[in-house]
Amino acid sequence: MRTRFQQGLDELREKLLRMGGLAEQAVDRACEAYRDRDLARCHQVLEGESVINAAERDIDEVAFDLLAMQQPMATDLRFILAVVKINSDLERVGDQAVNIVERVMDMVDLPTVDLPVDISRMANATSAMVRRALESFIEGKDELAQAVLEMDNVVDRMRDEAFISLVRKMNEAPDATQQSLDALLIARNLERVADHATNIAEDVIFWVRGRDVRHNAGVTRRTTPVVPET
Amino acid sequence: MRTRFQQGLDELREKLLRMGGLAEQAVDRACEAYRDRDLARCHQVLEGESVINAAERDIDEVAFDLLAMQQPMATDLRFILAVVKINSDLERVGDQAVNIVERVMDMVDLPTVDLPVDISRMANATSAMVRRALESFIEGKDELAQAVLEMDNVVDRMRDEAFISLVRKMNEAPDATQQSLDALLIARNLERVADHATNIAEDVIFWVRGRDVRHNAGVTRRTTPVVPET
Repeated sequence: MRTRFQQGLDELREKLLRMGGLAEQAVDRACEAYRDRDLARCHQVLEGESVINAAERDIDEVAFDLLAMQQPMATDLRFILAVVKINSDLERVGDQAVNIVERVMDMVDLPTVDLPVDISRMANATSAMVRRALESFIEGKDELAQAVLEMDNVVDRMRDEAFISLVRKMNEAPDATQQSLDALLIARNLERVADHATNIAEDVIFWVRGRDVRHNAGVTRRTTPVVPET
Repeated sequence: MRTRFQQGLDELREKLLRMGGLAEQAVDRACEAYRDRDLARCHQVLEGESVINAAERDIDEVAFDLLAMQQPMATDLRFILAVVKINSDLERVGDQAVNIVERVMDMVDLPTVDLPVDISRMANATSAMVRRALESFIEGKDELAQAVLEMDNVVDRMRDEAFISLVRKMNEAPDATQQSLDALLIARNLERVADHATNIAEDVIFWVRGRDVRHNAGVTRRTTPVVPET
């Protein structure tokens, strides 16, 4: 019975990683679609959304079955709850990719203008955050998760820079307002992806520290001599 | 033991409702701050954020303890998982209120301009969605939750209208670009609040339909004659 439960936990971990891969891919494709003004790529992202949504429901059901199967130990329970939360953040990363391609589809019909924003650089930073947040989860290391929280400040700064330079652009070139605004909203969507990566990192910390607290309590008990030393 | 567990479920429900009240209040205050350009209201919202964050952690811990306490029945399990998910949506509703007051604080330093957007109307619609999503949760009614999903389209349309008229404003009055953009981002934040209400409604449906499926299965069993009728 315990073994079947352990297999279930492994399955849950596998499925969540696959889900993470899908969400990351969606963001990467959305940013490629922006870079190349590529409608086919946009449609790929839109079609991928239902796959991500189905994967989310599947993971929730597996988590649910595991919780129903037997009374999990505290550390497994924290793990399963972390998976449920990370799962919904990954699904919303996918939603952000959809939001990005909606803006790209708006831009495709407009004249191309030179915009003072490096969306690719911002996309790389946010993808790295999602990837590292998932790594911190696989390895169960809260120091990796902590590093993700610090990366969030970098992305916020990029968003602020994009904000300032795009508003200036709107003022200087009113005929490029729509394109500037689309780019600004894409920068915002990427910032939201970074926020989800941050949430994931926080959930990893909740899981790992919960386990560590428990572990440390055990150590304390073991090092307390049963018979006082004389 | 069962009674203590039931008390725990009631406590969880109570705490989630209080959390919902805090999140709704934060959005209402943020919109008042916008309407009155009121910095004191802004600071109230900023200070409220830590209260909401603490409430979120508290609810997670109660849910965790309940899951650890005993093996819940399927319907209770779905309820607890729904609470965990709704909890994190409510916390993010609070985050959106913070985002709104950040934009208000930006606007306060700028000249007041007449903006072609009815933020109050949009705020009322999104507040109603959060309130009804919570009502559908209290009453365990998926038809109420379904109504929330339909309200989301109305808010999306308001956001689109705000988008179009504010971009036009930016083009016509370049010296009001910053204010127009602030208002546009506030409209976006409210749209995100509506998205969270939608997520909550979906979680209620997950919980209620899960229960109903189980309930109906019971009914089916009861109405199936053990001895075939002759």
